[in-house]
Amino acid sequence: MITPEKFPGAEIDPTGVLRFGGADTLALAKKYRTPLYVMDEDVLRANCREFRRGFEAAYPGETRVLYSAKAMTALEVMRTAADEGLGLDASSMGEVRGALLAGIEPGEIYLHGGFKKEQDLRDALRLGVGTIVLDSRDEALTLERLARASKRKPAVLLRVTPGIEAHTHHFIQTGRLDTKFGVPIAGGAALSLIAEILRSRSLELRGFHYHIGSQILDLKPYREAARRAADFIASLKSRLGYVPAEVNAGGSFPARYSSRQALPDVRRIARAVAGELSARLRESGVPLPRLVVEPGRAIAGPAGITLYTVGPVKTVPGVRSYVIVDGGLSDNPRPALYGAAYEAVIAGRASAPPDGNYRVCGSHCENDVLIKSLPLPSPRPGDVLAVFTTGAYNFSMSSNYNKFPRPAVVMLKNGKPRLIVKRETDGDLFAMDVITRRARATRGYRRPMKKSPPPTTGK
Amino acid sequence: MITPEKFPGAEIDPTGVLRFGGADTLALAKKYRTPLYVMDEDVLRANCREFRRGFEAAYPGETRVLYSAKAMTALEVMRTAADEGLGLDASSMGEVRGALLAGIEPGEIYLHGGFKKEQDLRDALRLGVGTIVLDSRDEALTLERLARASKRKPAVLLRVTPGIEAHTHHFIQTGRLDTKFGVPIAGGAALSLIAEILRSRSLELRGFHYHIGSQILDLKPYREAARRAADFIASLKSRLGYVPAEVNAGGSFPARYSSRQALPDVRRIARAVAGELSARLRESGVPLPRLVVEPGRAIAGPAGITLYTVGPVKTVPGVRSYVIVDGGLSDNPRPALYGAAYEAVIAGRASAPPDGNYRVCGSHCENDVLIKSLPLPSPRPGDVLAVFTTGAYNFSMSSNYNKFPRPAVVMLKNGKPRLIVKRETDGDLFAMDVITRRARATRGYRRPMKKSPPPTTGK
Repeated sequence: MITPEKFPGAEIDPTGVLRFGGADTLALAKKYRTPLYVMDEDVLRANCREFRRGFEAAYPGETRVLYSAKAMTALEVMRTAADEGLGLDASSMGEVRGALLAGIEPGEIYLHGGFKKEQDLRDALRLGVGTIVLDSRDEALTLERLARASKRKPAVLLRVTPGIEAHTHHFIQTGRLDTKFGVPIAGGAALSLIAEILRSRSLELRGFHYHIGSQILDLKPYREAARRAADFIASLKSRLGYVPAEVNAGGSFPARYSSRQALPDVRRIARAVAGELSARLRESGVPLPRLVVEPGRAIAGPAGITLYTVGPVKTVPGVRSYVIVDGGLSDNPRPALYGAAYEAVIAGRASAPPDGNYRVCGSHCENDVLIKSLPLPSPRPGDVLAVFTTGAYNFSMSSNYNKFPRPAVVMLKNGKPRLIVKRETDGDLFAMDVITRRARATRGYRRPMKKSPPPTTGK
Repeated sequence: MITPEKFPGAEIDPTGVLRFGGADTLALAKKYRTPLYVMDEDVLRANCREFRRGFEAAYPGETRVLYSAKAMTALEVMRTAADEGLGLDASSMGEVRGALLAGIEPGEIYLHGGFKKEQDLRDALRLGVGTIVLDSRDEALTLERLARASKRKPAVLLRVTPGIEAHTHHFIQTGRLDTKFGVPIAGGAALSLIAEILRSRSLELRGFHYHIGSQILDLKPYREAARRAADFIASLKSRLGYVPAEVNAGGSFPARYSSRQALPDVRRIARAVAGELSARLRESGVPLPRLVVEPGRAIAGPAGITLYTVGPVKTVPGVRSYVIVDGGLSDNPRPALYGAAYEAVIAGRASAPPDGNYRVCGSHCENDVLIKSLPLPSPRPGDVLAVFTTGAYNFSMSSNYNKFPRPAVVMLKNGKPRLIVKRETDGDLFAMDVITRRARATRGYRRPMKKSPPPTTGK
């Protein structure tokens, strides 16, 4: 049984219609068509504040929360996080450019990435990106060379791998030793690279970054990683006489995907990370560094739902019933990529008792399963299906597979919707295709379709 | 050990440089930058011809080959397949619009899809799409209603499920009974729906369609499905007095992903499908229907490679070595989605003996493994990595995850490259974002970046 009210922003009106962020979801589906991403600004802002307060309360030193933009890259979402006082964690120069476009100060941006090209580093220096998180010795050497030439002294962190095996999907398990990311603490590689960076006159080392995975529900890995970070700081102090000004503990924070799930709240996670770090540093008499965290999924995920229109409902006798919706793999690849599980309700009958379990599929030419088994009240063609917790890694991972235009994104504030990302048109789908004059003249090409106008300014 | 020459279009020049489609891959990477999709028009055309000839030779009746556009949706690829006399299999109205733009006659298009909206069916009627493949009874009823109102009589096929369990990845196994697709033959649902469609004065039933999966290497499922199709035809004749004019046996045809793989060639597969179908139909004295097949992967897959630039090469002592390239999940999600295995070589040293096995990762903020273990000759930053058989389901499934611009596509003809899809710019990444005047005035937004100009006409 699914309890929609367990999802923030969701409520059911007296007629059984799902409301989200104070808006009637059926009216949204009608006005903006489906599939449609819907974000609730209030939930987004509340989540930002919860992280700020949670870490401020749990840590005796300075704290800083960055919004991890890769979770949801719409400019308005980046802007909203910045309005709430968060800095920005960018995973590429594309995200940096988005953040700048959204009016975020370059100094507030951290640039991550396992392979930053020389041009990326050049651009980051030129644009004044606040902190560059170095992923390898080669990258440190390249940045040093560029910094020396440009007469800038960029602030850097070194990404280290604490060697934690957190229980999460193997694709998103990044803190263990066997990873492409960062430099391992074990064996001394991280320590010796830090010693090397400290000798550089062109790089300002501010500390280190670590990240243990995604959607980590258990508190133990947070504590264990913080303990290893504290021990690493102690060894940096004793071995190199160096005390980092900053420790960036990355993301990993979970979002609620299931209404039945027991989820540690932000305060508990903050206490696990910050409590362990500060307690152990105090024991070893090391001054507390600034603690930075980078929530993305936990901020944007619960702030979003996706609305679909139900198409065919098919029963394969003796096997199961299928509900096909007008989206799928292209707007939410997470079930196919990670086996991610979602919950959903029929928006118009959100409190009706289910008459059975249905397999919800998208309409791509694949099996394209969105939800393996979902209790629903006799779904019918034309119903609107609302899938919860799709605010993170849905829009940002969306594709045009099967030449489906990517959906629009609507943001709600006090129940009032505004379009923050337009739906692609059929013309946009072929906007990058090059057709030479000769091909047009000799090979029967037709005139191109209308492309979307340049970034709107609206009213 | 990888043998590049096993991949069509690939050869190694005397200096050890990989050539593809007659072009120097290092020169392509330099000129067009990386990541870069490269297609060889000659391989593409040869594959189209092989399918036409293979099925013509194997089947005593009429045959028709459709290019399954979803495999690779660039307009020039659709156009090339049409130039080779293939019809077009579209999985959505987006693909239909692309096909029309590429100058393909509407009558040559088959429209598939598990959920065609009423508007899609209306548009298909209006545009004169040649064949609509019906997926359910509801869809048949809707199309009948629309056809009656529009005074057109569209040609239709019914998609049926033969109940085959082919050995392939469960996401791309579509012919078995437990599927969202089509109407099962077992239990009589397909037969009774065909009887119903035959009574309609507004639909012209041409026959049925079935599809058993993707990348099927074993010949048995092809034969078994053809046998079931033949038996179904026999029962349609005996029970309804109806002889289908057409049987569409779908796709499933494999592409070579591994240089060591034993792959049945098109002629053998054609004999398996067509031989079984025609033999059994003759036994039961039924006139041979037109046989239609829909290769996509087998045509486009081997015609494409992807060129990446190698970035950091990292050794985690005692564990493994990582090679990070400047693309990954966003341009090729198949390893993450399906566990797909690829082969690759260092383009500049394609014949050098490997010094060990490397894990090739993309540069996304995920583990983002492209190739789990690949023998390479001491890869170095700046090397170009060429991954084989990426012509299908790479470009068409690509995303902007981590705000990576989607790569350009270059087509080679007699060794000469031409750009067929432009690389996205950073401006394109935020082209759909809506920033209101008010937000711009009050919330610190900056001026948008330049978007790509409208579809080019070039020289």
